Amino acid sequence: MSLETFPNQFPGREYEIEIVCPEFTAVCPKTGQPDFGTITITYVPADLCVELKSLKLYLQGYRNRGIYYEHSINVILDDLVAACQPRRMTVVGQFTPRGGISSRITSRFEDARPR
Amino acid sequence: MSLETFPNQFPGREYEIEIVCPEFTAVCPKTGQPDFGTITITYVPADLCVELKSLKLYLQGYRNRGIYYEHSINVILDDLVAACQPRRMTVVGQFTPRGGISSRITSRFEDARPR
Amino acid sequence: MSLETFPNQFPGREYEIEIVCPEFTAVCPKTGQPDFGTITITYVPADLCVELKSLKLYLQGYRNRGIYYEHSINVILDDLVAACQPRRMTVVGQFTPRGGISSRITSRFEDARPR
Amino acid sequence: MSLETFPNQFPGREYEIEIVCPEFTAVCPKTGQPDFGTITITYVPADLCVELKSLKLYLQGYRNRGIYYEHSINVILDDLVAACQPRRMTVVGQFTPRGGISSRITSRFEDARPR
Amino acid sequence: MSLETFPNQFPGREYEIEIVCPEFTAVCPKTGQPDFGTITITYVPADLCVELKSLKLYLQGYRNRGIYYEHSINVILDDLVAACQPRRMTVVGQFTPRGGISSRITSRFEDARPR
Amino acid sequence: MSLETFPNQFPGREYEIEIVCPEFTAVCPKTGQPDFGTITITYVPADLCVELKSLKLYLQGYRNRGIYYEHSINVILDDLVAACQPRRMTVVGQFTPRGGISSRITSRFEDARPR
Amino acid sequence: MSLETFPNQFPGREYEIEIVCPEFTAVCPKTGQPDFGTITITYVPADLCVELKSLKLYLQGYRNRGIYYEHSINVILDDLVAACQPRRMTVVGQFTPRGGISSRITSRFEDARPR
Amino acid sequence: MSLETFPNQFPGREYEIEIVCPEFTAVCPKTGQPDFGTITITYVPADLCVELKSLKLYLQGYRNRGIYYEHSINVILDDLVAACQPRRMTVVGQFTPRGGISSRITSRFEDARPR
Amino acid sequence: MSLETFPNQFPGREYEIEIVCPEFTAVCPKTGQPDFGTITITYVPADLCVELKSLKLYLQGYRNRGIYYEHSINVILDDLVAACQPRRMTVVGQFTPRGGISSRITSRFEDARPR
Amino acid sequence: MSLETFPNQFPGREYEIEIVCPEFTAVCPKTGQPDFGTITITYVPADLCVELKSLKLYLQGYRNRGIYYEHSINVILDDLVAACQPRRMTVVGQFTPRGGISSRITSRFEDARPR
Repeated sequence: MSLETFPNQFPGREYEIEIVCPEFTAVCPKTGQPDFGTITITYVPADLCVELKSLKLYLQGYRNRGIYYEHSINVILDDLVAACQPRRMTVVGQFTPRGGISSRITSRFEDARPR
Repeated sequence: MSLETFPNQFPGREYEIEIVCPEFTAVCPKTGQPDFGTITITYVPADLCVELKSLKLYLQGYRNRGIYYEHSINVILDDLVAACQPRRMTVVGQFTPRGGISSRITSRFEDARPR
Repeated sequence: MSLETFPNQFPGREYEIEIVCPEFTAVCPKTGQPDFGTITITYVPADLCVELKSLKLYLQGYRNRGIYYEHSINVILDDLVAACQPRRMTVVGQFTPRGGISSRITSRFEDARPR
Repeated sequence: MSLETFPNQFPGREYEIEIVCPEFTAVCPKTGQPDFGTITITYVPADLCVELKSLKLYLQGYRNRGIYYEHSINVILDDLVAACQPRRMTVVGQFTPRGGISSRITSRFEDARPR
Repeated sequence: MSLETFPNQFPGREYEIEIVCPEFTAVCPKTGQPDFGTITITYVPADLCVELKSLKLYLQGYRNRGIYYEHSINVILDDLVAACQPRRMTVVGQFTPRGGISSRITSRFEDARPR
Repeated sequence: MSLETFPNQFPGREYEIEIVCPEFTAVCPKTGQPDFGTITITYVPADLCVELKSLKLYLQGYRNRGIYYEHSINVILDDLVAACQPRRMTVVGQFTPRGGISSRITSRFEDARPR
Repeated sequence: MSLETFPNQFPGREYEIEIVCPEFTAVCPKTGQPDFGTITITYVPADLCVELKSLKLYLQGYRNRGIYYEHSINVILDDLVAACQPRRMTVVGQFTPRGGISSRITSRFEDARPR
Repeated sequence: MSLETFPNQFPGREYEIEIVCPEFTAVCPKTGQPDFGTITITYVPADLCVELKSLKLYLQGYRNRGIYYEHSINVILDDLVAACQPRRMTVVGQFTPRGGISSRITSRFEDARPR
Repeated sequence: MSLETFPNQFPGREYEIEIVCPEFTAVCPKTGQPDFGTITITYVPADLCVELKSLKLYLQGYRNRGIYYEHSINVILDDLVAACQPRRMTVVGQFTPRGGISSRITSRFEDARPR
Repeated sequence: MSLETFPNQFPGREYEIEIVCPEFTAVCPKTGQPDFGTITITYVPADLCVELKSLKLYLQGYRNRGIYYEHSINVILDDLVAACQPRRMTVVGQFTPRGGISSRITSRFEDARPR
């Protein structure tokens, strides 16, 4: 379940990768009920790209884990940033309705180092 | 019906939470007829997040209350800002047609304190 | 809140009237939470048509009434049949999701008397 | 504003003509307010086809006329049947919402004469 | 048919009101044929809000009036600005196709006075 | 511009071919203005299939030809039936709006010979 | 996780209940990977209706269970028929793509006893 | 590239399996250009179900094969019927436009043996 | 086929006119085949507005004219700018697919004169 | 399979060309399975435009070539920039889901030379 990476073959170019994972599910820590959502990851790679199969398995690791919406999106962002150290990254989680209310969480990272 | 909050675990990060509530209903104070609309709340939390179940109950509190569209959106914004003191917040109300005319009200708050 | 009717000016013709009411709301008798749905009524009038304003007020009468989905659709059908004695009538209720599950109830009436 | 026709060049073939008029408007006789709707006419011609420009002008004739939904659809059907004597014809009126309720009226004619 | 207003209860806040009127109709002064369109009004109120029922009646006043598309949108903007003196206002008219060509006219007002 | 065919390799099987041609244009014989529409042809082949490139050229042959909607659909049906002698065929023409009114013509052929 | 029922208050009427559950997930027994799908249940109740909360928990029971698509739909049908003995029931499972291929399974039950 | 099957666990029940393959591509034998389409297979299994991974590989076998639309759909139907001997099967191919014209081919099999 | 104009009654106001013409067709000079597209014209008028009927006839003038996509959009822009001398104008042509590839051309004019 | 160009007839004007190619397919170098995607190319031409037929053939050259998503988009950008030396160009590849995850790659070029 650890995130893997591969070398970016175009490190000198600022290009963007968007990955959509509509099959995300975790468990609400308060009610024990499953939550369902779509995770969208957008990033500009520096030296490393995220390997998609390991990302799929990493996200499947949340399947039986108790964690809040707001928390999970920020943890995914932190884990991805640690793994591939991108120039910029955004993680969005769009969750299905509960009690007639739906949520979307958006969290961003920007590498502040001089380039 | 009071709004509850929980501590934001990522207070140092500027991330965004969007909440969509398509089941809002209140009563028109002039005609006594029910109004129906979708409330969309978008905010950047500071130290507190809005707890969703209390938000649902808070919005249900408008069910038999006589209040104008324009007023309700601004009151919801004021109550939410008072409860969770966000960095920024927007409340949008999209109301269903009356007499062939539909309305959308958008109201915003921005914390002016230096950071 | 009583249903009113007006004379059908074309009683000899079998024509169909469909009425869509997307602003139906009642209260769940078990949880006390509001339910939201769209009621669609389709009928072939005999001697009477349903008056729309009284229908709107009749449906608003469910606003604070505790009743199950399945029950409400059948009661609405019975009340409308009693009021306007149509040749045929269908009532459909499409309810918004609860716990990730949405429901649609469809109930029909057909006048069995020889014509 | 009288409906005109032209000879059907394929009277021996049972083919269908559908005409959609999304710009129908009349006046409610009770409230004096304008109603708006889409009229859809479907028919199998016998010896005559409806001329479209005269149909447009005929429907514009309802613009300042007080008439109920249910009535107008049946009158349009009667007028069209009288003008072109089709084998079969259906007129559908889909009206925009009033008080949160929308209506669709469907009326049909079938030539019962032996063929 | 005169536009009415009511006091804005939140004059110190810059919030936005959008009103959509899909049932606008006027008469082409050149051909005498009816035009159909959707009028969308967006504004930031200063001390006054537009009263919706008077707006509906005001727009109905164009029903039998001969006026060009381009003209009507600018006249509506001028009349609304005169009535409620908003901080900013936009009026958009989206008209249905004529001769296979459809048009959208967008006109804006901004209060230039120092605030 | 003549329609070509090729042998149906599965003449013993009743299978269906649907062809959609959204780029049909002809000229109105009354006004001289171009008409635009989508032609949809559905048929069950007997011994011959319609060759698509010759069909495209055949339909382009209407580009500068004056012909009514209702007529063109029936002529296309006759020409296609003569060329490929299908078991069954339907031709539908959906035309773009003129004067706010759009039309759809549907014409059918069925081989009545015993099989 | 056992399915519960409640008495049908209108057993003499043939009415239909449709339930849509878009959050179904199980595990592929061959690959160990999670599958995702939408389960749609449509039935005509006899003496019993399916209780929705127990249905939600019953379907959650598949979350960590290894079972094929085709199998799960038929097992759900068998379990629901055993629990509520409906007059008729259909279960449809629409599964998300795997390897560029998506599947939908539809299984039906009809009570053959004379009525 | 041979089609594989697995035993149907519910052979006594008439249930339906629909498989959608939007990534079908073959080569036009006349022009050498690639064709693209979506293949939809619907069948009622008898004793055998089609294994999806082998189906994917089987359809990939058309990637560099010169074959006409109409032919390929009928060959796929024949191959699938031979492999799994279903009670009924339909294969539909919806192909992307060429020269402004798109095609859909639908072919059906029904087992005529007494049951 | 010459473009006509009429005086802009609100020359002091910067407002926008968008005109959509979905029935544009020309002939490819290389293949002789017809091309089809939608032309969208957006402009801010100065002293003159484009008269729509003459625009329709002007665009019909391309019907049998051999011209490339990229060329036609720029020629239309030049002709319209010469005719009405707008403050700003954009012409967009969205063309239907050829060989599985579709194109959109966007060309802009801005009056550089001091105002 | 080499990219061809033709002279831009409006080199002094900054206008934009967008080309959408929904039928792109290549082979995954790791699994040997085909990938499918839509390539969208947007550019402002300098002295040369890309000839569309050669572009189609160039993209068909990827059909049996093993290359990663991320790589192919950047190679296409490099090849197109080398061929037509545009002022600016963006290439976007939207790929169909694999393992429930879909990707979009966006790469950009800007001519840095003084103009």
